[in-house]
Amino acid sequence: MTKPKILVQLDGDEHASIFDAVVAVDAEIDHLLQYHSVEAGQVRDLVHGAMFTRGPQDLHNTAIFIGGANVSHGESLLRTATGCFFGPMRVSVMLDANGANTTAAAAVLAAARHVDLAQSEALVLAGTGPVGQRVVRLLARAGCKVRVASRSADRASVTCEQVRAIVAGAMLTPLATSNASETAVALDGVNIVIAAGAAGIELLSAETRAACSSLRVAVDLNAVPPLGIGGVAVTDKAVELAGVICYGAIGVGGTKMKIHTAALKKLFTVNNLVLDAEEIYEIGRELESGS
Amino acid sequence: MTKPKILVQLDGDEHASIFDAVVAVDAEIDHLLQYHSVEAGQVRDLVHGAMFTRGPQDLHNTAIFIGGANVSHGESLLRTATGCFFGPMRVSVMLDANGANTTAAAAVLAAARHVDLAQSEALVLAGTGPVGQRVVRLLARAGCKVRVASRSADRASVTCEQVRAIVAGAMLTPLATSNASETAVALDGVNIVIAAGAAGIELLSAETRAACSSLRVAVDLNAVPPLGIGGVAVTDKAVELAGVICYGAIGVGGTKMKIHTAALKKLFTVNNLVLDAEEIYEIGRELESGS
Amino acid sequence: MTKPKILVQLDGDEHASIFDAVVAVDAEIDHLLQYHSVEAGQVRDLVHGAMFTRGPQDLHNTAIFIGGANVSHGESLLRTATGCFFGPMRVSVMLDANGANTTAAAAVLAAARHVDLAQSEALVLAGTGPVGQRVVRLLARAGCKVRVASRSADRASVTCEQVRAIVAGAMLTPLATSNASETAVALDGVNIVIAAGAAGIELLSAETRAACSSLRVAVDLNAVPPLGIGGVAVTDKAVELAGVICYGAIGVGGTKMKIHTAALKKLFTVNNLVLDAEEIYEIGRELESGS
Repeated sequence: MTKPKILVQLDGDEHASIFDAVVAVDAEIDHLLQYHSVEAGQVRDLVHGAMFTRGPQDLHNTAIFIGGANVSHGESLLRTATGCFFGPMRVSVMLDANGANTTAAAAVLAAARHVDLAQSEALVLAGTGPVGQRVVRLLARAGCKVRVASRSADRASVTCEQVRAIVAGAMLTPLATSNASETAVALDGVNIVIAAGAAGIELLSAETRAACSSLRVAVDLNAVPPLGIGGVAVTDKAVELAGVICYGAIGVGGTKMKIHTAALKKLFTVNNLVLDAEEIYEIGRELESGS
Repeated sequence: MTKPKILVQLDGDEHASIFDAVVAVDAEIDHLLQYHSVEAGQVRDLVHGAMFTRGPQDLHNTAIFIGGANVSHGESLLRTATGCFFGPMRVSVMLDANGANTTAAAAVLAAARHVDLAQSEALVLAGTGPVGQRVVRLLARAGCKVRVASRSADRASVTCEQVRAIVAGAMLTPLATSNASETAVALDGVNIVIAAGAAGIELLSAETRAACSSLRVAVDLNAVPPLGIGGVAVTDKAVELAGVICYGAIGVGGTKMKIHTAALKKLFTVNNLVLDAEEIYEIGRELESGS
Repeated sequence: MTKPKILVQLDGDEHASIFDAVVAVDAEIDHLLQYHSVEAGQVRDLVHGAMFTRGPQDLHNTAIFIGGANVSHGESLLRTATGCFFGPMRVSVMLDANGANTTAAAAVLAAARHVDLAQSEALVLAGTGPVGQRVVRLLARAGCKVRVASRSADRASVTCEQVRAIVAGAMLTPLATSNASETAVALDGVNIVIAAGAAGIELLSAETRAACSSLRVAVDLNAVPPLGIGGVAVTDKAVELAGVICYGAIGVGGTKMKIHTAALKKLFTVNNLVLDAEEIYEIGRELESGS
């Protein structure tokens, strides 16, 4: 008899995310075990409880989802969790703290619908944040040249080094974009811009954007006005604005949600998946290609 | 495909109520998400997680139940939750902190089986507490004259003002009942008395009650001896005692439970219900009339 | 209509055990209500919530599982929980904090497959710990003579007194085994040895074990190397080693898991079970006999 599907939700926040819980239910899990305020030091006992209960042949029906608002905390929980596994004694695990992986995947997939990433050059605004770093990783792995922008040139350089350590041969340029003229220079010649900044901060004005003749796709991941890219509406989904295809946060939200759901379902097919940025992007690519 | 029914239990206590959880399961929800130690300042993120996950056509399958022992804390959670909603982006929500709404509804419905509320005058003992205030509201809205009794005349006056602000034209009289003779005066001429006091405190002696010739219905909501009304047994359910129809806490408990269950089921019929005292009473009236 | 099976997991730890949760799901409960950081002073309200919600005819579909790493804390939760029940107003409850009851039952059952307990004499190493005490209790109740060993003779004596208070006529001898020669003396003449010590501490060397000609069964409940009995492998399951039948922690783990699952299922057959060491052992015996 098939064992019920159990998803363990490990969340670093004081309350486990309801959003993540509802998506899990809609991904047809049978039982959700919610854990909040989870510290890295507590992960071992929790993960042992998940991996030592069912027999190896049933372990694909137990999986772990790591969430919470703090992405680096989530990364720490993921490292600790995967460090507990050995041999066939493991369960599949997915990281999507703050929705960073599914959001980055949806943003890059949106761009990939309109341009060939391997032939493109992209500017990632707020490229040093948790979502931005993942956008940079995914673009670089697809062969896209990436300008990694931050208010701080030092932080941009650090991110470039971190991504190069993960993506061999990544073509990255760190840039400071602390004012409009620096942003204009950073934008010059790229065909993709993705804004991954904090809510309510405009990173690229409508004027600067309109002045860039090379631009083909603009994706803004900020859902709270003022938005990150002037002139892009939060609900834009492949809306053309003077020759530029625009996406807003809600415009990529449908894709993000489909990826999240598909990734959760995939967790229960085998017991050895670790779904982080790249794996989740690949799930999105399969969805886009209809495979 | 119909989405599973998800009930989010927001509870201000250190442990979420098992009572509320069991009733939810028996109301045939599919998944219960329990949250404990919920503060008003945390409600926005939680409610956003519930309202921004499923599409508008599926939002009636997600609902929120607000519980916990502290009724005013629950009211605060309800205000914050409903303040998050806009347009069609909302989920149905029910408040029954400390069982106050379902208890008050069951008590007033018990009385309404035997007398015409619009032609009645009622005394509500401990009418300033969370259950008492709701009993006063429900009686007043049904056209009943209500004497609102408290040990403190000032508190009784405050409650009367609060209820008048909610129920236009409410016919209310504040009264102090700090001793037996004041209670006898307060009772004189009413046909309904409802005791909504704390556990283990007698608010009305058997002698005073027996001396009141106008009385037709006595409802005592205290389940822990000594009971609130002398001579009423906790299991009394329409038991006649010298011409007075008596109900004890367990005697109204069956009705309370049916209302609670019916209200939870109703939450999942549409996505825009806010079930507080009046709406929950109305659900009870529909149950009584068999509609 | 049959009510869904609700298991309330009361756990004293900061996070409720995932192990216990997964076993509960696989025992075919419908809804699991997880409570963590449960203090004895909070049990009354929680248990009242479980026992006062459904009617007496449905109470067998609600049950309580008490877990957590601290066995004496779990015992305290059990005492408080059972103290809340009266008359038919009760739900079935099982204690298996730290797996102590199911582990002790599996260990004693393993020995009982190979020797007649009523004709045996056993040495229980670390017999004063939570698992060890239960092993002593179960052996004594089966008519086995038991030598209760601890590094401290005083603690061993205390455990003997406690077990005698529970098992009338128990034949117990307290012993100090603080070094190899004391352990050799303690082992001399017994046919069963069960090591119930903490992880990573060898309680009986391979040499001392091999020198004991009377020994027939050795059970080691420590799963983390160095194991408790030299020469016994953690996966040993009735493996013969120079005439001694050996069991390691994983070797008794399958039986432990079957007992745990069967005990959970039994909880939902009636509403008045209290499953502690003896009752859980009896469930194991029924499983072994195929009844």
